[in-house]
Amino acid sequence: MEGVDYLADERKKASFDVEAMKIVWAGSRDAFEVSDRISKLVANDPAFRKDNRTMLPRKELFKNTLRKAAHAWKRILELRLSEEEASKLRFYVDEPAYTDLHWGMFIPAIKGQGTDEQQQKWLPLAYKMQIIGCYAQTELGHGSNVQGLETTATFDPHTDEFVIHSPTLTSSKWWPGGLGKVSTHAVVYARLITDGKDHGVHAFIVQLRGLEDHRPRPGITIGDIGMKFGNGAYNTMDNGVLRFDHVRVPRSQMLMRVSQVTREGKYNQSDVPRQLVYGTMVYVRQQIVADASCALSRAVCIATRYSAVRRQFGSWNGGPETQIIDFKTQQSRLFPLLASAYAFRFVGEWLKWLYMDVTQRLQSDDFSTLPEAHACTAGLKSLTTSATADGIEECRKLCGGHGYLCSSGLPELFAVYVPACTYEGDNIVLLLQVARFLMKTVSQLGTGKQPVGTIAYMGRIEHLMQCRCNVQSAEEWLKPGQILEAFEARAARMSVSCARNLSKFGNPEEGFLELSADLVEAAVAHCQLIVVSKFIEKLQQDIPGEGVKQQLEALCGIYYLSLLHKHQGDFLGASYLTPKQAAFANDQLRALYTKVRPNAIALVDSFNYTDHFLGSILGRYDGNVYPELYKAAWKDPLNESDIPDGYHDYIRPLLKQELRSARL
Amino acid sequence: MEGVDYLADERKKASFDVEAMKIVWAGSRDAFEVSDRISKLVANDPAFRKDNRTMLPRKELFKNTLRKAAHAWKRILELRLSEEEASKLRFYVDEPAYTDLHWGMFIPAIKGQGTDEQQQKWLPLAYKMQIIGCYAQTELGHGSNVQGLETTATFDPHTDEFVIHSPTLTSSKWWPGGLGKVSTHAVVYARLITDGKDHGVHAFIVQLRGLEDHRPRPGITIGDIGMKFGNGAYNTMDNGVLRFDHVRVPRSQMLMRVSQVTREGKYNQSDVPRQLVYGTMVYVRQQIVADASCALSRAVCIATRYSAVRRQFGSWNGGPETQIIDFKTQQSRLFPLLASAYAFRFVGEWLKWLYMDVTQRLQSDDFSTLPEAHACTAGLKSLTTSATADGIEECRKLCGGHGYLCSSGLPELFAVYVPACTYEGDNIVLLLQVARFLMKTVSQLGTGKQPVGTIAYMGRIEHLMQCRCNVQSAEEWLKPGQILEAFEARAARMSVSCARNLSKFGNPEEGFLELSADLVEAAVAHCQLIVVSKFIEKLQQDIPGEGVKQQLEALCGIYYLSLLHKHQGDFLGASYLTPKQAAFANDQLRALYTKVRPNAIALVDSFNYTDHFLGSILGRYDGNVYPELYKAAWKDPLNESDIPDGYHDYIRPLLKQELRSARL
Repeated sequence: MEGVDYLADERKKASFDVEAMKIVWAGSRDAFEVSDRISKLVANDPAFRKDNRTMLPRKELFKNTLRKAAHAWKRILELRLSEEEASKLRFYVDEPAYTDLHWGMFIPAIKGQGTDEQQQKWLPLAYKMQIIGCYAQTELGHGSNVQGLETTATFDPHTDEFVIHSPTLTSSKWWPGGLGKVSTHAVVYARLITDGKDHGVHAFIVQLRGLEDHRPRPGITIGDIGMKFGNGAYNTMDNGVLRFDHVRVPRSQMLMRVSQVTREGKYNQSDVPRQLVYGTMVYVRQQIVADASCALSRAVCIATRYSAVRRQFGSWNGGPETQIIDFKTQQSRLFPLLASAYAFRFVGEWLKWLYMDVTQRLQSDDFSTLPEAHACTAGLKSLTTSATADGIEECRKLCGGHGYLCSSGLPELFAVYVPACTYEGDNIVLLLQVARFLMKTVSQLGTGKQPVGTIAYMGRIEHLMQCRCNVQSAEEWLKPGQILEAFEARAARMSVSCARNLSKFGNPEEGFLELSADLVEAAVAHCQLIVVSKFIEKLQQDIPGEGVKQQLEALCGIYYLSLLHKHQGDFLGASYLTPKQAAFANDQLRALYTKVRPNAIALVDSFNYTDHFLGSILGRYDGNVYPELYKAAWKDPLNESDIPDGYHDYIRPLLKQELRSARL
Repeated sequence: MEGVDYLADERKKASFDVEAMKIVWAGSRDAFEVSDRISKLVANDPAFRKDNRTMLPRKELFKNTLRKAAHAWKRILELRLSEEEASKLRFYVDEPAYTDLHWGMFIPAIKGQGTDEQQQKWLPLAYKMQIIGCYAQTELGHGSNVQGLETTATFDPHTDEFVIHSPTLTSSKWWPGGLGKVSTHAVVYARLITDGKDHGVHAFIVQLRGLEDHRPRPGITIGDIGMKFGNGAYNTMDNGVLRFDHVRVPRSQMLMRVSQVTREGKYNQSDVPRQLVYGTMVYVRQQIVADASCALSRAVCIATRYSAVRRQFGSWNGGPETQIIDFKTQQSRLFPLLASAYAFRFVGEWLKWLYMDVTQRLQSDDFSTLPEAHACTAGLKSLTTSATADGIEECRKLCGGHGYLCSSGLPELFAVYVPACTYEGDNIVLLLQVARFLMKTVSQLGTGKQPVGTIAYMGRIEHLMQCRCNVQSAEEWLKPGQILEAFEARAARMSVSCARNLSKFGNPEEGFLELSADLVEAAVAHCQLIVVSKFIEKLQQDIPGEGVKQQLEALCGIYYLSLLHKHQGDFLGASYLTPKQAAFANDQLRALYTKVRPNAIALVDSFNYTDHFLGSILGRYDGNVYPELYKAAWKDPLNESDIPDGYHDYIRPLLKQELRSARL
């Protein structure tokens, strides 16, 4: 029935102030208000409807995205939205589009790598969208390894131009979003060659299409790379392929903040430190961590609500069946993901602070924290995106068969999310970078160089190598100090063990390759420690709202105890725990599930997602799932007629035994 | 270049007889020859082309499937294929269609539950496809719990008919494949009601559509349930919704082998034992395990070949970059999946034997092995489908960004495979059934009832509770006896530990619910032991072909050692292993990766898949990946024109700052 809240009873069970939790989730009252207002604005605008997306063929799907992107821009202008509000609006429109790359990569690249003069020329055009830009780095044969790119930019001193060229098929630019059909310009990465010498990869602004006719410019071959995972998902985006046949651009279009080519073709490195590049990486990756908490919380919201709606088994006396959220198997899969969504939210918040801190230090030429900040953001990007991708799929499975329907929203959420595990650094490659940093830290222990920030615990290595867990009851696993020591000891011992094994190799690089799977595990242990410690730090702050802190403490406990259970082998293998103590941890974990259960719906309501944004019948706020699923089915194009297209050619002749003579 | 084998060098590295391995994989020379012949027949028939599938909108996609299904049937008739060959042909066509349910569920249901008379009436029609049937069990509100179904079949003694009715919205049949648009008939599950009494769920043959006009019969509302996960995937199938408004069928259409309703409305149970139902379940689930090895091997074949083609990093001197298959991180993710594909193949082979054994015993009224066979197939269905779904996605990630393209074949393979984790018993629900069986076995220890079959190890419980691993070097982890003891001790101890914890609860059912997450883990340990032991048993047979057995031994080692590493916490927590011994296992695992590496391509060639069946540019036999990826991109409908549809309405006005006045 219209207007009935089928989850009202669930909402009454909550023992905390949901409105206060919404503000904690959003980060501040201001952030909450902007999010709330903009998400409703989008949800109430029929132009942003998305429930038909999975049924559209590619061309219609893409055209529809162009329409939405234009409408979004129109609204942004009409309402004079701030940059923050505009970005929120694009977020809630919830459809990958060329604008993501224009605002998220093209403009930041010019800001980060362009000279003041270049910024003055290009940024106003970009801000007004008089040009549309994308970010053309990866090539068909070259992904994560930027140094392997093949595209060349050869300086021609006769004309004061660079000649951009794709010397091989594998040097074709491949993947850049917004490239295939829309962008007028791109920041193109190419090997700079002056006077026959290769100076490595640099960035160039290249015009791709005519501003009047949108036709590819001479020498440019450009197109879309074809269908990707999922029905809608990233198929709304024109990920593109691009080849250059000796395309000329003026010298002024090399982004010259860090290095320059003079009129004579001389290559200079400016004194702007190259580490600045890491600053941008820290920025992009903290954004990815924030996105992870959004995507995971969205999936968890859907799975939690539907787990309260759905009933199964447990009725032998004619009463209603049991809500599946009451089964411990469901709780043991769902609640750690709910806890992870909150954990990632808070570590994302902290990363935002870290980025500001790093930026300030860079401005005063303090590079001391950069390696640690870089390792930490690389690791957290890897950890949170992998856990989120797996978590979304787990949420889909937690919804049973109906999770497989597009109308559940989960297939699309998975398909649109998983590239995050690969882009901006493959997750395994990133963990190996963390591992290198850990090995370096271990090798410097005792040299007087004190580890700082998230790696500071290594300074207490002697204690961490020797201490033993002294938990004697399930309750003691609720003590933050206890937990931190456990995660620190595990991470430290795994790193030290890797370092010892590495030292047995004559060639350290060879050892690093041979032991890389172990190194990845040590890196994961380090990154999990960071998330756990930032969650615990958050809880040491003042958190207003009745019962809010208590719920967060329960979630924090679920987060670390479920990790401890999952990685029990690490803790036992490092001889920190006894099996008995691990069993206590497991008992405590079950007790926390029971504590969170009555608050589960309120804890996902706290994300404050509109039904439009969730895009899921299973996750509807009002829990009115089955009538709406039933209604939605009839919208499929196949239901336009009782007799399907193809009946007369392919079904009737078969039933009538007339196939032999049929032409198929 | 056409005709060049870019993987030829890789193939030369193999140290075993690939042709002999192909026969091992297929199960027998005969099975190999049928598979080889039929797969090529399909691959060479342009009517079965599937490379455009992900670009088709739903109606065209579905019509195309109808065409293929009719063509397949035509070819089956023309070539007078045997039942086995016909089923292989449908398998290699590799597109879910209504025929899967007709042959795989509708006909078996009539065979299993119909009387001789009913079989004589319906089977000839079905075999000739003069009728098309589906299997209508699940309902909108009721999945795994068959006893919760709401559809009613009320006997009307006045007309000698059953009245089939959907009393609620949630009783709508929902999900059955082939139902939505094609099937003329269905086996419908409904609560049998005679004389006001509910006799539980029974099966009825119901005609759904007119054989002349294909229109839904009076009282029947029927349609497709809409888009599902993936682009093509299961969207080629008309999973359907069905509601009955007092639909009448003759009494003779209740399937009456096990129970009957007389002309007077009296309900009888025949003396055919109800356990027979379990026999069918064993059959269906052994098929699912066989399918798991197919799906996983397919993904592994793609990822392995592309890992040999793709190069990245490791070139600092201008030479080619390193093949990514040479990185230990890649090996440590890929090779356990390769080993799992073989492991699942062999356990599937054994399950086929088990099914025949159970069938023979049933025929001589021997039900003694049924509970064990039922638990074992339920557990293996769960274990293999979960591992396969995760494994396919892991293979996709192992292909880097390009794995996200539909032309890699992996997104579709994942989307079409994952429902296997949910259908025919949700994987977690099945593991809980295994756990119940384990707890029962433990409780009967010492009562004189000797555990048999896969649970026989529990008969040695005293030894298994006390023994300690005595491995003192990495090499000792290659001894089969050592491994079996380790997996048996782990499984036994986890079961006993659960049983002990259960005994602390006053109410055993309550305890079972509370400890269900631990029980699931114990069930997994038991099932992994089965797979490991069947792999080891396979290797005790005579296996012809140079080097074949050695490679299988290496794969077997990778299978169990990677499990041991992944579940190290179980082995350590059960106090069977020391951390040092676990480290030896890990060393041995790395050594096995090195041993398998040169044989990797040949080990996936042994699956004997055609490029058509693989459906993946990344997995092409000849390794000619990049030119083909490039070529395929241009086939996307978006590339039909340089200027995309929507440019004039939505891009140009934006670039020209004319949006404010535009109507969007």
